[in-house]
Amino acid sequence: MKLTILFGGASFEHEISIVSAITLKGKLSGFDLSFIFCDQDHTFYLIELAKMKATTFSKGEYKKMHKLSISKGGFTEKSMFSSKEHTGVFLNLIHGADGEDGSIAALFDFYAIKYIGPRIDASVFSYDKRYTKWLCNARGIKSLKHEELSSIEHDNIKIPYPVIIKPARLGSSIGVSIVKEEGELDYGLDSAFEFDSSVIVEPFLEGVKEYNLAGFMANGEIHFSIVEEPHKEEFLDFEKKYMDFSRSERALKADISDELESKLKKNFVKVYKNLFEGALIRCDFFVVDGEVYLNEINPIPGSMANYLFEDFKVSIELLANSLPHTKRAKVNYDYIHSISKAKGK
Amino acid sequence: MKLTILFGGASFEHEISIVSAITLKGKLSGFDLSFIFCDQDHTFYLIELAKMKATTFSKGEYKKMHKLSISKGGFTEKSMFSSKEHTGVFLNLIHGADGEDGSIAALFDFYAIKYIGPRIDASVFSYDKRYTKWLCNARGIKSLKHEELSSIEHDNIKIPYPVIIKPARLGSSIGVSIVKEEGELDYGLDSAFEFDSSVIVEPFLEGVKEYNLAGFMANGEIHFSIVEEPHKEEFLDFEKKYMDFSRSERALKADISDELESKLKKNFVKVYKNLFEGALIRCDFFVVDGEVYLNEINPIPGSMANYLFEDFKVSIELLANSLPHTKRAKVNYDYIHSISKAKGK
Repeated sequence: MKLTILFGGASFEHEISIVSAITLKGKLSGFDLSFIFCDQDHTFYLIELAKMKATTFSKGEYKKMHKLSISKGGFTEKSMFSSKEHTGVFLNLIHGADGEDGSIAALFDFYAIKYIGPRIDASVFSYDKRYTKWLCNARGIKSLKHEELSSIEHDNIKIPYPVIIKPARLGSSIGVSIVKEEGELDYGLDSAFEFDSSVIVEPFLEGVKEYNLAGFMANGEIHFSIVEEPHKEEFLDFEKKYMDFSRSERALKADISDELESKLKKNFVKVYKNLFEGALIRCDFFVVDGEVYLNEINPIPGSMANYLFEDFKVSIELLANSLPHTKRAKVNYDYIHSISKAKGK
Repeated sequence: MKLTILFGGASFEHEISIVSAITLKGKLSGFDLSFIFCDQDHTFYLIELAKMKATTFSKGEYKKMHKLSISKGGFTEKSMFSSKEHTGVFLNLIHGADGEDGSIAALFDFYAIKYIGPRIDASVFSYDKRYTKWLCNARGIKSLKHEELSSIEHDNIKIPYPVIIKPARLGSSIGVSIVKEEGELDYGLDSAFEFDSSVIVEPFLEGVKEYNLAGFMANGEIHFSIVEEPHKEEFLDFEKKYMDFSRSERALKADISDELESKLKKNFVKVYKNLFEGALIRCDFFVVDGEVYLNEINPIPGSMANYLFEDFKVSIELLANSLPHTKRAKVNYDYIHSISKAKGK
């Protein structure tokens, strides 16, 4: 099948998007793949398949490749005397800003481009951790208690130490730190505020059980991945996550009871349904005293969480053939006509 | 001052956006105004000032005008041998879909265009009435109890009659009906489901006191309009609202106590702050037993609620000079460099 992967973006996660894209090139062999790179200035480039390696980007070689502009149904490559259309199904693989904040979703919707990825609403509720809490409250999903801080007033923390501090709108552990006592607080807050003007504080649960579950909706039903218990150190810092984004080997199924697996799936459905249609997402859960808590929603997981799926290629194909349609309003001029008529014009 | 107004859109509120734009042409005389029309196919046209009248659009005459494409910092007009840039500050005046659902916000942010209007997050929380309820819950703002229905299961209503039925994602009273008894329910639901797959049901409070308050943030403080008690029949249907969108005469200040005015303003601030920066919004409140309830947020009110402001031109100028900056992430290739180095490449 034909699939175009969009990656890069003006995001702190720009590099891991490149790594993700390179990983998918390997995982989706046999597909008719194209790659479109969005650089930090929001210029789009068509990347030759043979050039899909990290140095093409780090050395700026991509700038010699064909520029594209977004257009109805896809992207257009204009040369002196002709223009070539790139259409079909796209996969939004821009992690973080641009890709996960709703921008690419809005662009794709506006230009009627078919894509795998979260829609605008879904992006807002997964990108900003504060709004993920609102989603949890509204849908009866448990999540850890939290406090929100803005850069102006950042001292009174009521949650007892240790706490984990996160920029509200970044993924991949960027700017995240664990603060074990008051003396470390300022440093932790500074690290987070470097990346965002809003920060959330949660209790840090040492040794908590963590489980990841991915899935997507196709043909009216949710297709789940296996459940993984991720190997972890205290938490993954950016460098480790970076390596994590290039994962391509099948993960091991977590050794959990059917009851817990079913609880995790129920929570996944509560998150997903009527919001994330069109996307393959990974939910990261905590389990405390047998209760499932949502930690984070990854609406564009690193390398699409390929390592969690029994048959990743079939999964992507299923999803690509079951994308939601956005019904565009039909415009008419009934009222203007009737008013013009009343005025005798 | 120079200001470009974007209007139209592929929306059920396409016509009222045209009316809004024509009204603003009159209200912002003295400004260096331009008008860009977005038609239902999402093609942009530069409309000559003299042609800013309803029939230009209803008769399709706009199609003869210059086409524009969106580009960094604004719009570009390409002719055979040259291209002309349209930059400066834009005002997003597309009501409903496209304008209020986050699409135009995302486009403008992506292309680094300065604009008056709600940002992506703010759009999501005002466009979908279900998410407005989540906002209210999270921020301690009272709102009427409600039920959500999806097109599949639409019979069990627990709220006692009379109720008001609204499509979740439309403004301007489109698809809204008041249902006084069970016998009218199916018709009310059908009307709403014609426009949206999600519908909300609220109690209909006959004769409830309603107050509208608009405002915006500039130079770090909120600038409020007067409070108006809108004249109303049971509720405004689309045709009446349509006329309402061309309002240009100063409204009368509602005869209310300082205490109530201050309560309304406090609620406005709870809605606005750290979400609607960059936009001039109108909040419609109900008052029941002295308590303020948020009914609706209009993030792009009809004709920008010009009739509520003491000096509308000064207000728009203040806002245009105080737009929020989106800090774009600086991309670097530190990790790729360090990994390449470690590999000896």
